[in-house]
Amino acid sequence: MIGGGQGAFIGAVHRIASRIDDEYELVCGAFSSNAERSKASGIVLGIDEGRAYASYIELIEKESKLTAHERAQVISIVTPNHVHFEPAKLALENGFHVILDKPMTLTLEEAKELKEISDRTGNLLCLTHTYTGYPMVKQARDLIAANHIGKVRKVYAKYPQGWLSSLAEATDNKQASWRTDPSQSGIAGAMGDIGTHAFNLIEYVTGLSVSHLCADINVVVPGRRLDDDGAVLLRFDGGASGVLVATQVAAGAENNVQIGVYGETGGIEWQQDDLNSLIVRYTDKPAEIWRTGGGYTSTAAMFNTRTPAGHPEGYLEAFANIYRNFALTIKAIGNGEQPSAQMLDYPGLNEGVRGMAFIENVIASGKSEQKWTPFTI
Amino acid sequence: MIGGGQGAFIGAVHRIASRIDDEYELVCGAFSSNAERSKASGIVLGIDEGRAYASYIELIEKESKLTAHERAQVISIVTPNHVHFEPAKLALENGFHVILDKPMTLTLEEAKELKEISDRTGNLLCLTHTYTGYPMVKQARDLIAANHIGKVRKVYAKYPQGWLSSLAEATDNKQASWRTDPSQSGIAGAMGDIGTHAFNLIEYVTGLSVSHLCADINVVVPGRRLDDDGAVLLRFDGGASGVLVATQVAAGAENNVQIGVYGETGGIEWQQDDLNSLIVRYTDKPAEIWRTGGGYTSTAAMFNTRTPAGHPEGYLEAFANIYRNFALTIKAIGNGEQPSAQMLDYPGLNEGVRGMAFIENVIASGKSEQKWTPFTI
Amino acid sequence: MIGGGQGAFIGAVHRIASRIDDEYELVCGAFSSNAERSKASGIVLGIDEGRAYASYIELIEKESKLTAHERAQVISIVTPNHVHFEPAKLALENGFHVILDKPMTLTLEEAKELKEISDRTGNLLCLTHTYTGYPMVKQARDLIAANHIGKVRKVYAKYPQGWLSSLAEATDNKQASWRTDPSQSGIAGAMGDIGTHAFNLIEYVTGLSVSHLCADINVVVPGRRLDDDGAVLLRFDGGASGVLVATQVAAGAENNVQIGVYGETGGIEWQQDDLNSLIVRYTDKPAEIWRTGGGYTSTAAMFNTRTPAGHPEGYLEAFANIYRNFALTIKAIGNGEQPSAQMLDYPGLNEGVRGMAFIENVIASGKSEQKWTPFTI
Amino acid sequence: MIGGGQGAFIGAVHRIASRIDDEYELVCGAFSSNAERSKASGIVLGIDEGRAYASYIELIEKESKLTAHERAQVISIVTPNHVHFEPAKLALENGFHVILDKPMTLTLEEAKELKEISDRTGNLLCLTHTYTGYPMVKQARDLIAANHIGKVRKVYAKYPQGWLSSLAEATDNKQASWRTDPSQSGIAGAMGDIGTHAFNLIEYVTGLSVSHLCADINVVVPGRRLDDDGAVLLRFDGGASGVLVATQVAAGAENNVQIGVYGETGGIEWQQDDLNSLIVRYTDKPAEIWRTGGGYTSTAAMFNTRTPAGHPEGYLEAFANIYRNFALTIKAIGNGEQPSAQMLDYPGLNEGVRGMAFIENVIASGKSEQKWTPFTI
Repeated sequence: MIGGGQGAFIGAVHRIASRIDDEYELVCGAFSSNAERSKASGIVLGIDEGRAYASYIELIEKESKLTAHERAQVISIVTPNHVHFEPAKLALENGFHVILDKPMTLTLEEAKELKEISDRTGNLLCLTHTYTGYPMVKQARDLIAANHIGKVRKVYAKYPQGWLSSLAEATDNKQASWRTDPSQSGIAGAMGDIGTHAFNLIEYVTGLSVSHLCADINVVVPGRRLDDDGAVLLRFDGGASGVLVATQVAAGAENNVQIGVYGETGGIEWQQDDLNSLIVRYTDKPAEIWRTGGGYTSTAAMFNTRTPAGHPEGYLEAFANIYRNFALTIKAIGNGEQPSAQMLDYPGLNEGVRGMAFIENVIASGKSEQKWTPFTI
Repeated sequence: MIGGGQGAFIGAVHRIASRIDDEYELVCGAFSSNAERSKASGIVLGIDEGRAYASYIELIEKESKLTAHERAQVISIVTPNHVHFEPAKLALENGFHVILDKPMTLTLEEAKELKEISDRTGNLLCLTHTYTGYPMVKQARDLIAANHIGKVRKVYAKYPQGWLSSLAEATDNKQASWRTDPSQSGIAGAMGDIGTHAFNLIEYVTGLSVSHLCADINVVVPGRRLDDDGAVLLRFDGGASGVLVATQVAAGAENNVQIGVYGETGGIEWQQDDLNSLIVRYTDKPAEIWRTGGGYTSTAAMFNTRTPAGHPEGYLEAFANIYRNFALTIKAIGNGEQPSAQMLDYPGLNEGVRGMAFIENVIASGKSEQKWTPFTI
Repeated sequence: MIGGGQGAFIGAVHRIASRIDDEYELVCGAFSSNAERSKASGIVLGIDEGRAYASYIELIEKESKLTAHERAQVISIVTPNHVHFEPAKLALENGFHVILDKPMTLTLEEAKELKEISDRTGNLLCLTHTYTGYPMVKQARDLIAANHIGKVRKVYAKYPQGWLSSLAEATDNKQASWRTDPSQSGIAGAMGDIGTHAFNLIEYVTGLSVSHLCADINVVVPGRRLDDDGAVLLRFDGGASGVLVATQVAAGAENNVQIGVYGETGGIEWQQDDLNSLIVRYTDKPAEIWRTGGGYTSTAAMFNTRTPAGHPEGYLEAFANIYRNFALTIKAIGNGEQPSAQMLDYPGLNEGVRGMAFIENVIASGKSEQKWTPFTI
Repeated sequence: MIGGGQGAFIGAVHRIASRIDDEYELVCGAFSSNAERSKASGIVLGIDEGRAYASYIELIEKESKLTAHERAQVISIVTPNHVHFEPAKLALENGFHVILDKPMTLTLEEAKELKEISDRTGNLLCLTHTYTGYPMVKQARDLIAANHIGKVRKVYAKYPQGWLSSLAEATDNKQASWRTDPSQSGIAGAMGDIGTHAFNLIEYVTGLSVSHLCADINVVVPGRRLDDDGAVLLRFDGGASGVLVATQVAAGAENNVQIGVYGETGGIEWQQDDLNSLIVRYTDKPAEIWRTGGGYTSTAAMFNTRTPAGHPEGYLEAFANIYRNFALTIKAIGNGEQPSAQMLDYPGLNEGVRGMAFIENVIASGKSEQKWTPFTI
């Protein structure tokens, strides 16, 4: 693991996610750019003293010299965005698979380069777009793919947060500080942090690709350096249209990311606040409530469910699904087998590249006087 | 009453709304452009035979000749949009107050003319924007006006319907036919029919005025002649921004019109599917559920509530609130009194004119390549 | 109307309910036991001066002397319980139909006597058990009757209120005063006031009859003279069992009366807080949300619905359904026609007698050391 | 671990729960009463070959001979009820701490004996009453303990399941088979399996002790050998009363265990289907929605929360809280420290003994003709 030392938030989430299905063991880390602190974190986390490295460069150098049996197989990078590209590149080039928090990199160019390296080396990359790990999100995707609601016409996605309603970065809020700092976060704030999640959710669930967008991007809180709010009109290949909202200034909102998709004959609605339910609507009969663990759910939904219906799965389980599926893919390949569709069901390089393209296009559109900006990669 | 003969939908709603608080008595009508049918409806509705007129022209002519005691005071016009302006104009010019279904007219010019006539004659006009009649919508307005959530930053409103997911106007669906016909409905379909409701709800609740908009207006169902779908980015005087969605092709959706408004320190959320609840969110304490009939609700909320908390008020009661408040205003004025703020709390000419301006601006923006269209009247 | 003068609560509800469908006209009243006040109320309500009577005796005497065309047809009695039997008896004996608020009388004997009089005279009696007027309650009944969930096994009903959490009758709360006074309310408090509603809801929806009960009846608030809380184990003819809860001391609760019924293959769940939805559960497929106004709903549900799906019906509409159906029944009979099943769908004498038997049995059980008390009439 | 071999359900849940917070390592097991199968499970679970034992007797014997550093510290017993007492006794007597699935034993006597052994040896026992592991359940307890809703008057708890609506034990449903078999499950079916959960939830949240009960216990599905349904009237020390419902024949129900508690001035409501929300009601102000992760939540709620508000915790996290708190208690004691109140916040021997007393009392009451049965231990 690179990053995720004491006090970090998402590092602990990654570690729990990795443990849930027992497919990972934490063997080494560069938990901090400060050697002392990295070592201290290593002790708390119970890894061998010699494998709490002073830097990601040392980690990759030393681990790559260990035997195949000893050395880390997968490197999880849980640092702020500006420390994604270099360690991921180095890891992929040196024979490690990589798990990366989103967004993938600081720029689209970097994302493309990682994809090129992965394609060349055969080392894999997984991006933790958590929300696609939920069973009912997979169920939604499967219903739409099976034409259950007809051809998709309208897509609405929303990620409302309220935690940046005040200038939290002016206090000692570490999360707020780096996420609103262009040098660490990149050209986008809210759009990079949660807009990409909503974007990924849309493309995952519908199977459609955004072709044009028209964005209203705002810095709402005075003194902030990056966007904390945005709304985007969307057009998709094939004619559907939609709206994406991502904001960090919806005061009082938590993280109720949500999606609604409407086709010719029905619609689906999902929201994180009721994550184990999927509402399926029809024009001519009662709406249905599909539930995680229901015996009628799809192969993918069941594959990513651990407990019987009514024992709620949560956020960490969705996160764990991504970790687990990535591990199963690596193991299958290691065994010379073709990973199943269920194993391959994790966000990866394509999603990462499209996510970075979303950031660049949406920020460009936000600055444009022209209504529609073509989605270019 | 003009329009609303046998088989019509909204006419019956208006009649129920007028009866609930016993402030109106139906005394005459031109229920159909067909004299026979108007008479037949009159019989069913129990009005005097001589006062079921063959046309609105006859109605206004004859009623205006009756004594003040006998004649109708208020004329309710419940016809399709293209039969709003002429009868309303004639009624106002001849000493009647007018209740009009929305949108007010076919064009902004007509709306302005009605306003000019009303201002000149002193005869009043009420527009049935039903959703502002709900107690919890009034509570939302009152909380925002009292700075309960701080200065407003973000506004989201959505009116999703699914009933026009197929080409219903090709069947004998009377409602679908006139609402998708430019000669009866005007230049807008969904935007006129339900977009104006969402727009009115936004301006009513927030007290803000839209200054610019950027619209994506679509005809989704092949063969349709007017828009059945749209999404609009909004900017408000004073700096807030927002999104308005109105669609008639969200297959399976009913009429769950909804609004969320977020200020510096909190937010409010309301939706018609749970109309007697208002969610109030804060950044630093638990969200609250304000309820119709709660002893802590505002004067306006209580004024428009008939039953104790937990005995749900519905759509007809909201409609009735508009009718009742308009009647109380007329009575107060008739008694030489100044109507109270609660009595004056009904949608009227200003809302009608702004609604027509919304239609014209949003359709213009939909056709424009330019991102932002200034909201002009 | 008898009772319901200025300041009364339920009288106003009855009047609104009577007006909604325009099947009633308020022509006379004994609105108060005080002649002056009755007259004053009559003026406010706009009835002829001579027909605001000083007492119900005068009302019945004088109205019965009017011509059939002039005189009241139906007398609505909206007084406290102890003024139900005498006026109802007098009215039925003198050729009037009667609408009575629940519970029917002070004692089971009185209820039986009213039934006998009605049977003998042919004059009808309607009891305003409001909750069975909801479209989705009728839908629940229809699904169960059609064996949609198999043979019923379990029934849960709950009526939680919180308004008597403190000794409100010690203040000048008129509603609390009479409802907690044995001389006005009868032998039961909560069980009579809301327990009878839950009981009626159960028997209406399931079509089953309670055969035995085991009650825990409590006076929770010190100083109160009648029960304000109770829970009852139920057994039904045919083997089903259930639980009925009615309490007025669930602090903070409003009026969320609710019912769940489970059969061999599925279940239904309804609650007043979401009155336009009916949840239908299955063992092997997704639960469904049936909605008021849905095109797939039953004849009875549609017959009692006024607005399209998504325009919420409320409490007053449910109340109005009872008034309207009773009127249609009277009209049909008056026309020499057999009223349809939909017209006859209002609570009447049988429900009233069973409700009074419920009160007597449940209070007896509450005092008994024996577990099961047979339900006797 | 004893039990939990391949194909078992709850064993896997226990293992995930143990891993989430990294306080446990699985080092040995007797996963099956079949030596071969135990070994096979051991291989899959990645434990040393020599430590997949043929029986729990062998496990305890051999592990107790290992050095303190090597040997298992805690033994988790995840077998059917009839294999709880003997291995737990043996483990406690031989220096191991024990984690036991509920209900604790087959009889109250056995439970008392385990308590006596634990008291004598100082080895600890933890019982996995999962639902008390939820942050908002702890918040409910803390609010009530802090007198937030006044003295408790009414308590309602319900655990509805539908999975035994048909005779599943006649198929090859392993879960159904042992849970409906008196020789493996004890004298109670539904009451033991889920009634004890509801009972534990009640006593945990309210801090009250049941003093009397009156039970209606049923075998609903023909051919079943143990109760699959029950409803219980409750009385508590101090005067409160309540109702407990537990059923496995509510067709279509999942596992929506729920509790409502009402005091003099307010109430709390929690249900597993919305586990991260706690509704707090008041008589005089809007209800509140307390949320897992909210900055205003109690020390105990925060101590058992891993992710920020709006990232839903689930069932496995609640389970993990119990495992984690038990581990922290053991570690503190091992370090010679007094465990904190938060560490000691896991269900243990007292809860186990009271749970077994509930089973014996509730089954006795179900058979009694007398209304109230005193709760005896």
